[in-house]
Amino acid sequence: MTASIPSDLDTFFVANRARIEQELFEFLRIPSVSARSEHNADTARAAQWLAGAFGTAGLKAEIIPTPGHPVVLGEWRGAGPDRPTVLVYGHYDVQPAEPLDLWTSPAFEPTVRDGRIYARGSVDDKGQLYLHVKAIEAHLRVRGRLPVNIVVLAEGEEEVGSDNLGDFVRAHRDRLRCDAVVISDSSMFAPGQPSILSSLRGLTYLQLDVEGPSSDLHSGIYGGAVVNPATALARIIATFHDANGRVAVPGFYDTVRDWDPAIRARMRALPFDDAHFLAEVGAPALNGESGYTTLERVWARPTCEINGLLSGYTGEGAKTVLPSRAMAKVSCRLVPDQEPAAIERLMQAHVDRVTPPGVRARVTHLHGGRAWRADLTGPLYDAAAQALEAAFHRAPVIVGEGGSIPVVDDFAKALGAPILLMGFGLPGENAHAPDEWMSVENFELGMRAVATLWDLL
Amino acid sequence: MTASIPSDLDTFFVANRARIEQELFEFLRIPSVSARSEHNADTARAAQWLAGAFGTAGLKAEIIPTPGHPVVLGEWRGAGPDRPTVLVYGHYDVQPAEPLDLWTSPAFEPTVRDGRIYARGSVDDKGQLYLHVKAIEAHLRVRGRLPVNIVVLAEGEEEVGSDNLGDFVRAHRDRLRCDAVVISDSSMFAPGQPSILSSLRGLTYLQLDVEGPSSDLHSGIYGGAVVNPATALARIIATFHDANGRVAVPGFYDTVRDWDPAIRARMRALPFDDAHFLAEVGAPALNGESGYTTLERVWARPTCEINGLLSGYTGEGAKTVLPSRAMAKVSCRLVPDQEPAAIERLMQAHVDRVTPPGVRARVTHLHGGRAWRADLTGPLYDAAAQALEAAFHRAPVIVGEGGSIPVVDDFAKALGAPILLMGFGLPGENAHAPDEWMSVENFELGMRAVATLWDLL
Repeated sequence: MTASIPSDLDTFFVANRARIEQELFEFLRIPSVSARSEHNADTARAAQWLAGAFGTAGLKAEIIPTPGHPVVLGEWRGAGPDRPTVLVYGHYDVQPAEPLDLWTSPAFEPTVRDGRIYARGSVDDKGQLYLHVKAIEAHLRVRGRLPVNIVVLAEGEEEVGSDNLGDFVRAHRDRLRCDAVVISDSSMFAPGQPSILSSLRGLTYLQLDVEGPSSDLHSGIYGGAVVNPATALARIIATFHDANGRVAVPGFYDTVRDWDPAIRARMRALPFDDAHFLAEVGAPALNGESGYTTLERVWARPTCEINGLLSGYTGEGAKTVLPSRAMAKVSCRLVPDQEPAAIERLMQAHVDRVTPPGVRARVTHLHGGRAWRADLTGPLYDAAAQALEAAFHRAPVIVGEGGSIPVVDDFAKALGAPILLMGFGLPGENAHAPDEWMSVENFELGMRAVATLWDLL
Repeated sequence: MTASIPSDLDTFFVANRARIEQELFEFLRIPSVSARSEHNADTARAAQWLAGAFGTAGLKAEIIPTPGHPVVLGEWRGAGPDRPTVLVYGHYDVQPAEPLDLWTSPAFEPTVRDGRIYARGSVDDKGQLYLHVKAIEAHLRVRGRLPVNIVVLAEGEEEVGSDNLGDFVRAHRDRLRCDAVVISDSSMFAPGQPSILSSLRGLTYLQLDVEGPSSDLHSGIYGGAVVNPATALARIIATFHDANGRVAVPGFYDTVRDWDPAIRARMRALPFDDAHFLAEVGAPALNGESGYTTLERVWARPTCEINGLLSGYTGEGAKTVLPSRAMAKVSCRLVPDQEPAAIERLMQAHVDRVTPPGVRARVTHLHGGRAWRADLTGPLYDAAAQALEAAFHRAPVIVGEGGSIPVVDDFAKALGAPILLMGFGLPGENAHAPDEWMSVENFELGMRAVATLWDLL
């Protein structure tokens, strides 16, 4: 039997559509860039704003300090001890918006074009968090109650590695005790195709600094006799992969187990179109680790990526400088059973081994998080499948996710409850790039799917 | 018989010391950064200022436009057709001053500390150009005439490759006709050790752009399936050298001839101390092409250097971005018989060959100039040796120079006159780095040596 969206809640969503959108836009206008200390006041303001929104929805709101940006907690426990308790997790911080000149409309001025809300944080994760808040509000306004007890936990450090959330979850383990964790911070496989996540990749994020001469030198007067840190950095980076696209850092794959053959078969059965994916990314060609499909490369295989490079003179024209230093931001996406700290040690040891004489290389930890793999059985997943089908009129598929939500592993370890990741983003949404967007339809249907889910638990 | 500084001129220099220094400081305060279009007005102002200074010295001054920054010409032809004509060349443009925060005192506020004038352009080349202007002024003020005819040619594009000076010299060949070219835009071998240059390296300066996806991507969602342009750039750069520090671009050494054994022997006989050089550059160790000494590496061997790197996220903290592009500034120092245009073609062909599939690489010409080798015989060199010994009380040594003065080759080809390069910089002068300085003593003695030279021609 197929479930359907409860009509009383649907009516509420239709009647309040414009107000809900305006509220979301207010939230999106706050540049809560957690990575940038100059935005600390904005990030604090986003937490305050969200606490207010929790109150409006009928949740008891509390802002709880951490050593970094605060956690905003919203609770409603009126369903009673016999009913399940659900923990909803999301984040109110966003990625930096640079380069600003590549945005079609300003990053922090939400604009609707072609059925999409364009703004930094629209899909990652303010829009996806806010649809949960409004789904709760619908139940409490229309019916005066929810069928489950709810705790909404919103953090402000997801984009910088959730460094304080593990401690927070462990310290508040009793208060956060629950029967299910629900997270919407990922994407659907395709437009109209709801999706449940079976895995997340983990992350080790490092900065690699190569230092040579004590100051920039004239490349003519010194060049040839002094090792160039930019050249040395390039030579170090070039050892990170072999000719087949495999990470060539010794030990990197030692703990990587083959993917479950059943999951791998389901992945291979998905109607994935390399040509469409290529057109979407706009690169001359796709390439990666030999022997794997594109979906396996992003969902099931670990990587080592350069996220940034900086050295010497980078302005207009020519400057004949032998730079004194060179920097790379390096991140490894990890699969289950790879320990972020162990990978960091392997990277450090490898860099030490391959650094040419004449320069010093320094590896600095920026952040890390474990990968995660779901157990896709049990009533939570069954209910989610029904709720998604009710809203989207299509059964969900099981997908992987190449990105990281480091706190999922913390929840799994500290709370022991099953974790459901159902996201409402879409391919091409530019989550960490200029022109980030969220589909208006997915916001609307996602809100309805979540509201329906509570009735099915 | 040893020459000595003419006492009437020496008296002039002593009496006018403070005024000359203040004038030089005025010149140094003008941020004539030719590489930056936002400094175009400053560069024009420096040309105006210099024309005024030529007038003060007694030269007939003229500012002559070029397609880029103008040439400033100063002439005095009162010695008559039987006396030699000397062309003095220098440049009034300077390198960019960034990174500004590494300057002890502001780059464009000249400051004397420990017998050094600290300022951008102090030694490269405003100070060295200005000592020629004041040497001319001494003759004309004290004696009312010079023993030679003089043309001073100051350009404003040396730091961006002198792109228009070759055409200028060819177009004004008759006006610039001379018996000797004298240039002070280089360094002495050591404090107190005057030096005459036997060679300059040439230059091919390129920008290498690697482009992948059409916009920055989330490194989790796409990483592994899309070729990373920053990684690709590093892999391309890593092919530029072999493990022995030799440039590994095919054909790069094909036209390189061995250095003259006599010159090589004189270079090896110079009292050069690797440990002192290492301490000066402040690197962990020296390294370069196997089989050559440090001096040979910088004077007699070609190089391929990375002058800048830029890609993706380079700010504070971590951003998990797969960058859409990556850029390197690449310059090759060349030795005589290497053609800049030919080397550029070899670099382009090599980059095309090693660029991995999945990205596009583009090589853009920024500038280039030929290397040069002096013929160290004849009356000009004998007179220079005497004048330098008169001022410094020590016979000059013959040195090489790893840097480039592209216009030297133009002068050699267009004017056919012998070229004397005698510079008054010193090792460690930070010519293209923060805290550039010129020795006050070298400014004073250089001015006297040049003034003495005119009497000896």
